[in-house]
Amino acid sequence: MPAVICVIFAAMLSSNTGNGSIMNPIAVSLGDPSGIGPEVIAKAWMLRRDHGLKPFFAVGDRRSIEAVWSGPISQIVDPSDTISCFDDALPIMQVDDADDIIPGEPNMPGARCALHSLELAVGLTRANNAGALVTGPVSKSQLYTAGFTHPGQTEFVAERCGVGRDNIAMMLVGPDLRTVPVTTHMPLREVAEIVTSDMIVARVRTTERGLVRNFGIENPRIAVAGFNPHAGENGALGREEIDIVMPAIEQLLSDGIRVTGPHAADTMFHARARARYDAAVCLYHDQALIPLKTLYFDQGVNTTLGLPIIRTAPDHGTAFEIAGKDRAEPGAMIAAISLAAHCAEIRAARG
Amino acid sequence: MPAVICVIFAAMLSSNTGNGSIMNPIAVSLGDPSGIGPEVIAKAWMLRRDHGLKPFFAVGDRRSIEAVWSGPISQIVDPSDTISCFDDALPIMQVDDADDIIPGEPNMPGARCALHSLELAVGLTRANNAGALVTGPVSKSQLYTAGFTHPGQTEFVAERCGVGRDNIAMMLVGPDLRTVPVTTHMPLREVAEIVTSDMIVARVRTTERGLVRNFGIENPRIAVAGFNPHAGENGALGREEIDIVMPAIEQLLSDGIRVTGPHAADTMFHARARARYDAAVCLYHDQALIPLKTLYFDQGVNTTLGLPIIRTAPDHGTAFEIAGKDRAEPGAMIAAISLAAHCAEIRAARG
Repeated sequence: MPAVICVIFAAMLSSNTGNGSIMNPIAVSLGDPSGIGPEVIAKAWMLRRDHGLKPFFAVGDRRSIEAVWSGPISQIVDPSDTISCFDDALPIMQVDDADDIIPGEPNMPGARCALHSLELAVGLTRANNAGALVTGPVSKSQLYTAGFTHPGQTEFVAERCGVGRDNIAMMLVGPDLRTVPVTTHMPLREVAEIVTSDMIVARVRTTERGLVRNFGIENPRIAVAGFNPHAGENGALGREEIDIVMPAIEQLLSDGIRVTGPHAADTMFHARARARYDAAVCLYHDQALIPLKTLYFDQGVNTTLGLPIIRTAPDHGTAFEIAGKDRAEPGAMIAAISLAAHCAEIRAARG
Repeated sequence: MPAVICVIFAAMLSSNTGNGSIMNPIAVSLGDPSGIGPEVIAKAWMLRRDHGLKPFFAVGDRRSIEAVWSGPISQIVDPSDTISCFDDALPIMQVDDADDIIPGEPNMPGARCALHSLELAVGLTRANNAGALVTGPVSKSQLYTAGFTHPGQTEFVAERCGVGRDNIAMMLVGPDLRTVPVTTHMPLREVAEIVTSDMIVARVRTTERGLVRNFGIENPRIAVAGFNPHAGENGALGREEIDIVMPAIEQLLSDGIRVTGPHAADTMFHARARARYDAAVCLYHDQALIPLKTLYFDQGVNTTLGLPIIRTAPDHGTAFEIAGKDRAEPGAMIAAISLAAHCAEIRAARG
């Protein structure tokens, strides 16, 4: 740990010397060392030229990569070392917590390693030594046993950035679809009790600002989903649209935001419908995730809006069951790195 | 009305002379004469050769087709007349209830016409004078004003076939996806209160038999969705999977049905996942409809399982707002007619 803290502080101190006009390399935390994070990061590096990936460096334990991949790795001490070695080797900033790394067999040291990798990667990005943050997949239940008290990596990153949970939004991004769930990991029967007009308003506002700042879309169009079948059919199939969604939309419209809805959720995600908005704000987890993963299972990216930094993640888990078997698809990790670079460039250009 | 009743009874009486080995023409009710039903049926007939459609005849008021289409129409008095005229004209069995048909402007006579068209088409199919039934889109609110007391056409058809509502299942069919919702048109917050293990068992059994009898799939594989995000994560995100879905699956497995689940709904509809089952049984409307319509908005077919007849319908509504504007896509109607013929042939081959 002392070594990790030293690196963070050194990075923070050196941030003032950074040049905002040239994007710094992207920090990619490996996630759980026994999951597929190390494998997909190595595969993304191998495919860096095919996908035109900007320089990135891994943050974690190199042994977790060596357990699943025999390619070249270059241990770096400062993110800026990435540029000189990225062509020839996968750069890594070493985090030394993991012992006995066995792919597919998570353990406590591995969870600690995942947590410290995340801390270091966030710190470097927050300090502007990394141009953006990509987080590899972690096991929440493993992290909890290691003393982690946040619901997930997103909330941890938000806290480290000094942003309250109500002011961030999780956005799922595919090639021609962006969805934002208003609620995420809770029982579906509780959603109708918990969702309020204020929550919808907050999430749409965060989404609108994120589309402008991170995606460069001026005056973006946002579609809000209804909750019930056929968006409630004017109250015949449920009142949440009338009581909760419509008041939120009216307030947002009066604020000048280009919002439409409530839309029937089953008819708002086909190709012609997707062309009519820049993001869909959905009321519950599966309403946002089903269309995204049905269409783009291997390319889905999760990005957090409302942060002072750019943060993306591949939209898959640790997949312990296939770790170490060379079966993991790197598509989502490649998409996450690409999107992080794209958003960071847009932010840099906007100044 | 007397004319309609006469035709039904004449058809029923003549059914004993039918030859089961040669498929009779397919009956297609026009649905609401002011909706897009007449237009998509006419367009389907125009494209009959491109799609290799088997002979079908419309049931409804020819004036509703003439209001939107100037092609050849041949009024028939018996379904068997279809064969001789189908190459040259769209065959229709006339139902004379509609007055003042204006596309996009539904009225009471139109609703009555839709209802009588449905009655006649069901009767002909039930009597085996038609090989299968395809129903055009109706407006439920219009039907209710005309005295219709069933929730929808599906329940009406089931009653006319002498089958209880609990023993039918609505299946949505796309090129490589079939979904069956356990509940349909009800507020989402009520679903968790209403769904029971028995309902899931009944729906899976109807689905299993339908896949065998109508689709010719022996020993079909059925995937059951969970209710909560991540299928509840072992109770952490909701208990419906543990309390309701798992007991149903255990019972079905003990009955020898090849059922899996509960599956996380967001990861069960991408291409590789779809290849692992023949039908997905879903717990609520949008869980079944979002993936189907996201992938196959213009090709979706609704078919009713558990009936003594084959019944399909295009998975879209009356679309009054575009009726008469030559903008309606016939893809779903073509798919509905194709699927009806396909299923009828499989049933006939099975004897």
